[in-house]
Amino acid sequence: MSYTRGMSSRFVLGLDFGTDSVRALLVDCDNGEEVASAVSAYRRWAQGAYCDAAAQRFRQHPQDHLDSMTAAVRACLKQAGKQAAAQVVGIGVDTTGSSPLPLAADGTALAFHPEFSEDPDALCVLWKDHTAADEAEEINALAHGGEFPDYTQWSGGIYSSEWFWAKILHVLRANKRVARAAHTWIEHCDWVPAVLAGIGDPAQIKRSRCAAGHKAMWHPSWGGLPSSEFLARLDPRLAELRARLYTDTATADQCAGQLCEAWAKRLGLPAGIAIAVGAFDAHLGAVGAGAKPFELAKVMGTSTCDMLMAPAAAVGDKAVPGICGQVDGSIMPGLIGLEAGQSAFGDVYAWWKRVLAAGAALSGAKGGDPERILPALSEQAAKLEPGAGGLVAVDWFNGRRTPDASARARGAIAGLHLGHEPAHVFRALVEATAFGARAIVERFTEHGIAIKRIVALGGIARKNPFVMQVCADVLQRPIAIVASDQCCALGAAIAAASAAGVYKTMAAAQKALASRCERTVQPTRKLATAYDALYQRYRALGQQVS
Amino acid sequence: MSYTRGMSSRFVLGLDFGTDSVRALLVDCDNGEEVASAVSAYRRWAQGAYCDAAAQRFRQHPQDHLDSMTAAVRACLKQAGKQAAAQVVGIGVDTTGSSPLPLAADGTALAFHPEFSEDPDALCVLWKDHTAADEAEEINALAHGGEFPDYTQWSGGIYSSEWFWAKILHVLRANKRVARAAHTWIEHCDWVPAVLAGIGDPAQIKRSRCAAGHKAMWHPSWGGLPSSEFLARLDPRLAELRARLYTDTATADQCAGQLCEAWAKRLGLPAGIAIAVGAFDAHLGAVGAGAKPFELAKVMGTSTCDMLMAPAAAVGDKAVPGICGQVDGSIMPGLIGLEAGQSAFGDVYAWWKRVLAAGAALSGAKGGDPERILPALSEQAAKLEPGAGGLVAVDWFNGRRTPDASARARGAIAGLHLGHEPAHVFRALVEATAFGARAIVERFTEHGIAIKRIVALGGIARKNPFVMQVCADVLQRPIAIVASDQCCALGAAIAAASAAGVYKTMAAAQKALASRCERTVQPTRKLATAYDALYQRYRALGQQVS
Repeated sequence: MSYTRGMSSRFVLGLDFGTDSVRALLVDCDNGEEVASAVSAYRRWAQGAYCDAAAQRFRQHPQDHLDSMTAAVRACLKQAGKQAAAQVVGIGVDTTGSSPLPLAADGTALAFHPEFSEDPDALCVLWKDHTAADEAEEINALAHGGEFPDYTQWSGGIYSSEWFWAKILHVLRANKRVARAAHTWIEHCDWVPAVLAGIGDPAQIKRSRCAAGHKAMWHPSWGGLPSSEFLARLDPRLAELRARLYTDTATADQCAGQLCEAWAKRLGLPAGIAIAVGAFDAHLGAVGAGAKPFELAKVMGTSTCDMLMAPAAAVGDKAVPGICGQVDGSIMPGLIGLEAGQSAFGDVYAWWKRVLAAGAALSGAKGGDPERILPALSEQAAKLEPGAGGLVAVDWFNGRRTPDASARARGAIAGLHLGHEPAHVFRALVEATAFGARAIVERFTEHGIAIKRIVALGGIARKNPFVMQVCADVLQRPIAIVASDQCCALGAAIAAASAAGVYKTMAAAQKALASRCERTVQPTRKLATAYDALYQRYRALGQQVS
Repeated sequence: MSYTRGMSSRFVLGLDFGTDSVRALLVDCDNGEEVASAVSAYRRWAQGAYCDAAAQRFRQHPQDHLDSMTAAVRACLKQAGKQAAAQVVGIGVDTTGSSPLPLAADGTALAFHPEFSEDPDALCVLWKDHTAADEAEEINALAHGGEFPDYTQWSGGIYSSEWFWAKILHVLRANKRVARAAHTWIEHCDWVPAVLAGIGDPAQIKRSRCAAGHKAMWHPSWGGLPSSEFLARLDPRLAELRARLYTDTATADQCAGQLCEAWAKRLGLPAGIAIAVGAFDAHLGAVGAGAKPFELAKVMGTSTCDMLMAPAAAVGDKAVPGICGQVDGSIMPGLIGLEAGQSAFGDVYAWWKRVLAAGAALSGAKGGDPERILPALSEQAAKLEPGAGGLVAVDWFNGRRTPDASARARGAIAGLHLGHEPAHVFRALVEATAFGARAIVERFTEHGIAIKRIVALGGIARKNPFVMQVCADVLQRPIAIVASDQCCALGAAIAAASAAGVYKTMAAAQKALASRCERTVQPTRKLATAYDALYQRYRALGQQVS
């Protein structure tokens, strides 16, 4: 089927590199209509290649990224038709992050060199890889030691094992061969635009403000990346690497380059069209969701990313402690982008589902469908009172991201008695994730960052009314549900429209193209007191078990 | 089949009135051989009559007790044969407790009067009935107020809603008709011997030291039951009742009376044989298990009762706080009997089993057998390390009995992460129950009561080697497993042999007749350090969530 309306339109393409697949979304530059969309899953990743879940090692082959991007774009354009493909004027890219990969001296991914193509350490170190826990602790100790500026200051005060420097330091130490061959390292969101633009020299690649500021401790106040002296104290090779990295960064409305002939042909797109500077998925998701300053955009899925924009004047020079960073322009140019999140949200419910589904196998029962469990529990749990018969839970089943990141934090369930059933525990877990959301809101507001509105996007926002109602009740705020299922790719398309000059500013592009909200979940006012009390129990239990 | 060996033997009959049924056990007085045994379930109870689980109201009709006793005894004697039946020289009785029932002015159970036969308040208020929570708090407040002696002193310092005075006070207030008609009240373990002996006048009924001392605050230091003044302050009717109760009590080696003609005929036994004074099941269970002074006898089932005997000289006049009482002669004459326990033990595992079985149902799986779940989990959990991957749990899923009774205490599971499976949680729950056992042992030893040996009896002791190994490892003590499956009835038979004069003392009867141990579970020494650390986490979590 071809796109026949608005034949005179121009289109932009948003590429959303998620954890499991790439989504390509073709958007009409006039009105934001989502014209065509296709998804392609990573083949090697789906087979579990290069990963070791027990060791929390998660690596992705960049060939997966290119193969799936090609497949998704071609499928998307096939839906839209040849004429629409010819009218594409820009490409925007978002990826997970921090997900760095090493480049060889010739500027290509080290993994594309045959001697490294099967070495996990030469691949993209995915955001959720936790192999660098020791290195993160070392970075924190040095940054907090007083000898250097606290380089973690704008990253919430705690450097994470999921981030750029920790991961590189870990690979440098763990794999001498890769350490020697890696000329430089690059974030996934910077690498894709560079590949599409055919930029061979790493020094010429524009680097994402978003990735640099949130994950690499880049900040103008200390002249960009942390000092050579600081990095050398961690490892002399990091100081050498710094010289081959970058000083300047760019926001996602800027042009990273033009689509090169080779990739234009491969994808079926016009050569020379604009490629926007990349950014992380949740950041562009907030853009696609239409979030404005002081609106908290909650990307709610297995985990959450909670994105907030505020003018520099409102944030001042105060660092909000215990969030995942605040970076000028990391979401939209001219605004401070503040990032927070919960490291497990839907994953907490999925855990309970897996545990209960295992009951079937243990009892020898057959023929069940685990996907029936959470809908059934949601129905039962919705009938229970807040507190689920005396229960209170803590949601840190995958550590805690915000407030105050801790990889060691764990979940808990208290108040259990012999009469509790699966739905009681489920309700307590849902309430716990909502309390986690409230803790994030309070962290912002307690530090003077007002939150005027909450918008929710992602799988859970649209698909689980029970969870969203509990969130609204616990937060005692309305939550607007974003209509688009693909806000991240839409945000990337908005960046493309801006980089291509279709709109003068990213704000204008967002205003024209971002998703509307489809409904608003209203808080139940009479539950405020009960949830206030339960929230205090949540906080107390959290303090006690962390 | 008739009993043909030892035709010249004498036999004793132990009657064990459990929660669900009566067991009759015929024992050879020469060697303790368990000659014949039969069980009869309570018919009305099995139908849920007179009970309301949601309100924690559990009542039993005394007609159930008599019907099932008759059936069990006749079935047992039928197995043994007529000649053996003719050679029975005594009957011993144990029951649950505190399980009081009201008697009419004529000395019969009020429930046997037609106008009260269907009134739950006229029935036996079973041990696990928790309707008297408010009344227990009132008794504690008065006892601890300073105006009276602390009558709870020898009951662990906290009067329970499961006990004699609280239950009677609750019924007196809740049911005026019963309050007016109840001439007096009697513990189940005192009522059965009186019925068998045909004693009509309540004033003539010998009262169990065990029931009186542990549940009715009877103590020689204040002249028996609490003073009239104390009881009158709670309710004038309690003070009136006191005058119709008792001053003296008797140990289980003494004779409560002789089997009357009517019951001899009904049961198929010789009239005039000795009937021992009754006692509670766990107390006589410790006797049947062969427990000696300073040996902790753990009766392990859905809950545990932990029984310990010590010479008065060793206990001195110190009250061990937070246990379920210490009473001279409550287990064996001449020794202080100390009682403790966990209000949920196997019930905690059963909760997890029910949750997992419900999970199977939620997924739509069919054909499973929930009884396969715990064996499968035991096998998996046995392969895990102590701590089950970072978990720690608290076992108070049914409140806490010892140390420091609290009906409000609840269970908890902490340290949860997304990788935990049902077996991890199960192991944590098993460890939690073992930590609860350790807390009891420490409460005794910290107050100068040495524990020289641990013997375990009951369903879990013999049937779950994994649980018993964890208990031995956590306690870092060997645990001897008692061979008999019916130690309570065996203990009642030992009391009968003593009351009948077959043996001069109960100690001699126990030595001749008690069960042997079939094996000893040895602690794994190398796990001591790990479990010490986990036990501290258990205590800390318990403090935090209670």
